[in-house]
Amino acid sequence: MQRLRRRTPQEFDCVLSSMCTVPHPAAHDEAVRFLSSNPGDPATYQTIAKLEDEAVELLGEITDLDEPYGYITSGGTEANIQAVHAARNLAETDSPNLVAPESGHFSLTKAAEMLGVELRTVPVDDDYRADLEALEAAVDSDTVVVVGVAGTTEYGRVDPIAAMTDIAHDAGARMHVDASWGGFILPFTEYEWSFADAPIDSMAIDPHKFGQAPVPAGGLLARDRATVDALAVDTPYLETTSQATLTGTRSGAGVAGALAAMESLWSAGYRQQYRDQQANAEYLASELQARGIETVEPTLPLVAAELAPGTFESLREVDWRISRTASGELRVVCMPHVTREGLESFVSDLDRIRS
Amino acid sequence: MQRLRRRTPQEFDCVLSSMCTVPHPAAHDEAVRFLSSNPGDPATYQTIAKLEDEAVELLGEITDLDEPYGYITSGGTEANIQAVHAARNLAETDSPNLVAPESGHFSLTKAAEMLGVELRTVPVDDDYRADLEALEAAVDSDTVVVVGVAGTTEYGRVDPIAAMTDIAHDAGARMHVDASWGGFILPFTEYEWSFADAPIDSMAIDPHKFGQAPVPAGGLLARDRATVDALAVDTPYLETTSQATLTGTRSGAGVAGALAAMESLWSAGYRQQYRDQQANAEYLASELQARGIETVEPTLPLVAAELAPGTFESLREVDWRISRTASGELRVVCMPHVTREGLESFVSDLDRIRS
Repeated sequence: MQRLRRRTPQEFDCVLSSMCTVPHPAAHDEAVRFLSSNPGDPATYQTIAKLEDEAVELLGEITDLDEPYGYITSGGTEANIQAVHAARNLAETDSPNLVAPESGHFSLTKAAEMLGVELRTVPVDDDYRADLEALEAAVDSDTVVVVGVAGTTEYGRVDPIAAMTDIAHDAGARMHVDASWGGFILPFTEYEWSFADAPIDSMAIDPHKFGQAPVPAGGLLARDRATVDALAVDTPYLETTSQATLTGTRSGAGVAGALAAMESLWSAGYRQQYRDQQANAEYLASELQARGIETVEPTLPLVAAELAPGTFESLREVDWRISRTASGELRVVCMPHVTREGLESFVSDLDRIRS
Repeated sequence: MQRLRRRTPQEFDCVLSSMCTVPHPAAHDEAVRFLSSNPGDPATYQTIAKLEDEAVELLGEITDLDEPYGYITSGGTEANIQAVHAARNLAETDSPNLVAPESGHFSLTKAAEMLGVELRTVPVDDDYRADLEALEAAVDSDTVVVVGVAGTTEYGRVDPIAAMTDIAHDAGARMHVDASWGGFILPFTEYEWSFADAPIDSMAIDPHKFGQAPVPAGGLLARDRATVDALAVDTPYLETTSQATLTGTRSGAGVAGALAAMESLWSAGYRQQYRDQQANAEYLASELQARGIETVEPTLPLVAAELAPGTFESLREVDWRISRTASGELRVVCMPHVTREGLESFVSDLDRIRS
């Protein structure tokens, strides 16, 4: 495998650790064309502002939301931060808290720390999904938002979103779903996760992950306008009146690329991609299990497995880009750039290292 | 002038309102090559992580800081938010405040609202620079940071940074300089604004403005490591231990583009650009003054002028992208894409409208 040289962009054939991927060719081309447009200044850059509206509409279609409010964020982190931010601003407590399973993304730690919101994490069950009893015990009248994950970063699990929403709403809290990674594959599964499946209030869904948009392109979606209004600040010297985004200047490449990817792939292309990568994940899991390696069942295209000490490091030494779960397991994310041949080569390197 | 069509990227020849610009060709090319790299995951995307280190080093050179700590942000808004964030986290008060001139960018409003920091704005003097007496009266023992602007958004003014730093430090507060717009032209002026000019603690400086990088590419710089450490959260499942950025996934295009632009233009290219645009601003100001239009002297390449009611709207109707100051004056920013011919055409449209 080729060593990295200075100024050589990442070779994706060795990347098994990333939730980002190679953009769709149409998305790449549109991103290049809009590289110097700034959707953060819609009165100046009117074309890209219109494309952003269309991208949000399409995200609404994918997540079953007829009238979506929201915008194209820099990624899932910004979408999660802004969801917590809106919840804090809309609530009336002086000591707000946020409740999420321990499987929640570390952006929730950022959000809580930054926003002065207490982060209460609850355990997960044997299948790595939020424990509902623990959740019920953790929420109280100061809870401003409950966060469920639809496609967890470590094991690709989908929390029981509908039941969590009931618990959140019974406590007077909002319900946010982090579908940053899962949002573009879940429509082809039986999981309950979307705006139609439960009365959730907001969602994070990233075009730059399974959506095959170039970075940076995330999505914050909300059922009601109040969410976006709660985030808006006045914007003098822009010929628009307010801005609900965390950042100011934003990437036209991300917005135009996201729209082009969605128009090219929704829905048949995404369905095929889900099937291919789910099959790849099942292939890898069965190869690992056949070697006696303890492997977590890939219910979405993500494989976690317990390697012997030193094996992980040896695989990285031969340039495999892999990462670990918090408990140290190997974690392989089957993104659109991952091929069966690549996984075969990975397994064969693993065999050589273990022999 | 051509009307905007769907999917046609912005024509920059009519843009006089933006602080963004057309990227340098080398920056454009590098951005395209690194469109799918994520500097937010440096253990996976090692090349772009190395380029980011080099970009921060170069920003240090431009701002006279030998050992810069910081990172490439999504823009000036993120850099300002994180500077206030670090100041809040490093201070010991329960009721933190931030003091800035009323000429400060609206990202300070975002930062304050989000971070639970009181924003105290002080008036500016007759030349639109922070009033030092008012500043001295506004700071107290709960002040965590004073923000000075080196190149204000509305009039391109540089605050008295050294004197403000004294006031900040005497009060036990940090000093942050917002040079988001001015940072790449101030090295060629007599202004005091850099890390060498005063013992400032942190700075925002945006490659995607006068640096001629593609969006999104801002910069947060700090004199000490404590600033960055104060922002870091743990990052499980990335093979790096912590992350000080506001966002998670970040734009490889912005980072690679910023480095390529700086390597191409620092320092001779930026010096020429400053001279050309300062001359353009002086040309426009003198043309406006010659027509009896009250015009603020352009001490940096930014012109503000008082137009008769309706004139501004008429100029926008013939597709000029212009914006207004908070008090309603026309505001023209002479960025690298602005040409003398373009300004002549603008003046001639103005004459036609006024006749």
